[in-house]
Amino acid sequence: MADVEVHPDQGAVVELLGVLAYAELTAFDRLAEDARLAPTLDGRAALARMAAAEIAHHERLAARLRELGVDVIAAMTPFVAALDAFHDGTHASTWLEGLVKAYVGDGLAADFHREIAVFLPPPDRALVEEVLADSGHADFAVREVRAAIAADPTLAGRLSLWARRLVGEALTQSQAVLVEHDQLADLIITGTGDLAGVGALLQRITRAHTARMAALGLNP
Amino acid sequence: MADVEVHPDQGAVVELLGVLAYAELTAFDRLAEDARLAPTLDGRAALARMAAAEIAHHERLAARLRELGVDVIAAMTPFVAALDAFHDGTHASTWLEGLVKAYVGDGLAADFHREIAVFLPPPDRALVEEVLADSGHADFAVREVRAAIAADPTLAGRLSLWARRLVGEALTQSQAVLVEHDQLADLIITGTGDLAGVGALLQRITRAHTARMAALGLNP
Repeated sequence: MADVEVHPDQGAVVELLGVLAYAELTAFDRLAEDARLAPTLDGRAALARMAAAEIAHHERLAARLRELGVDVIAAMTPFVAALDAFHDGTHASTWLEGLVKAYVGDGLAADFHREIAVFLPPPDRALVEEVLADSGHADFAVREVRAAIAADPTLAGRLSLWARRLVGEALTQSQAVLVEHDQLADLIITGTGDLAGVGALLQRITRAHTARMAALGLNP
Repeated sequence: MADVEVHPDQGAVVELLGVLAYAELTAFDRLAEDARLAPTLDGRAALARMAAAEIAHHERLAARLRELGVDVIAAMTPFVAALDAFHDGTHASTWLEGLVKAYVGDGLAADFHREIAVFLPPPDRALVEEVLADSGHADFAVREVRAAIAADPTLAGRLSLWARRLVGEALTQSQAVLVEHDQLADLIITGTGDLAGVGALLQRITRAHTARMAALGLNP
């Protein structure tokens, strides 16, 4: 996406791997918890499988951090407060809210991390892209949410509001993270070139988010 | 263990695979929940990894049921009440209780299922033995529990009582399952030969349980 040559120091790499490693761990928790909201054993197993995939990703990131000689816990700790705050502020209370969060929330986070990964050295970039690749989970969420809205169209309004709350909370917490993590913020600004570059990045993320909302049958 | 040639009909095979598939799904739930009791991020990730392993096992069993032309949900449903009752009756309220449950409870269940699997046709027997093989989780639980008891020896008494409650609840629920599932009960009686054979089976399971309690530093 950017043609700029960036050589981030290891600090930024470790910060990105650290935030992702903790993000995968919390994603596991939340998917495992939301699995219990499933109306069927099928749905419960599907969400449990997604949760298991997140832990596999966490493992890959932790292994890379260890390879870089970094303590995994120390790398994750600075991001615990912001990510826990995000999940506490967006606790799904129904099965459908959980699915929308899994699809819209994780999609947004993945896009954002993928944009930053472009500025990383090749091995780390490849690793981040690999753990962020969707593993067919999206299809499941889209199918379930669309079917539910088809059966009860009034759901669309409520779930659209819920998705907007997710985005708001995600923005709040991302900002908090960037304010406290200079190296990560520097990486984005240097990588995109300037503020116009940051604007273009945000536009790409917004477009992808709008497409996901449409896929679910929701209004962005 | 038994020299008797048994040819269980498919009913018993499906019942065993069904109960195991649901057991793995509930084990996932419980480990994922207990992971949140972890005092450290390390412990939390360790329990989350165990949970992910259970889902991989669930997947293997579900795939085999589908191969046999059996609906996975239908095969699991008869066991939902008993297994949910077991977990509801033995809700861990501390990190150490969760670890004892993971090690002692899962060990007991694995031994029992392994004994029955001996009477299954080779492909199913191999599959059951594979999903029941310990994947290094036991070491983690033993290490943590022993370290905690070393630091505070009064814990040993309380955790021993807890383990006994787990065993009592497990026996109650296994009996309930066998009363309602003739084919599984028949398989055990035919497989072991007679009531003396059943007695020997229970003795083997008890011995292994006693060894696990000793490994944790608990009184059986």
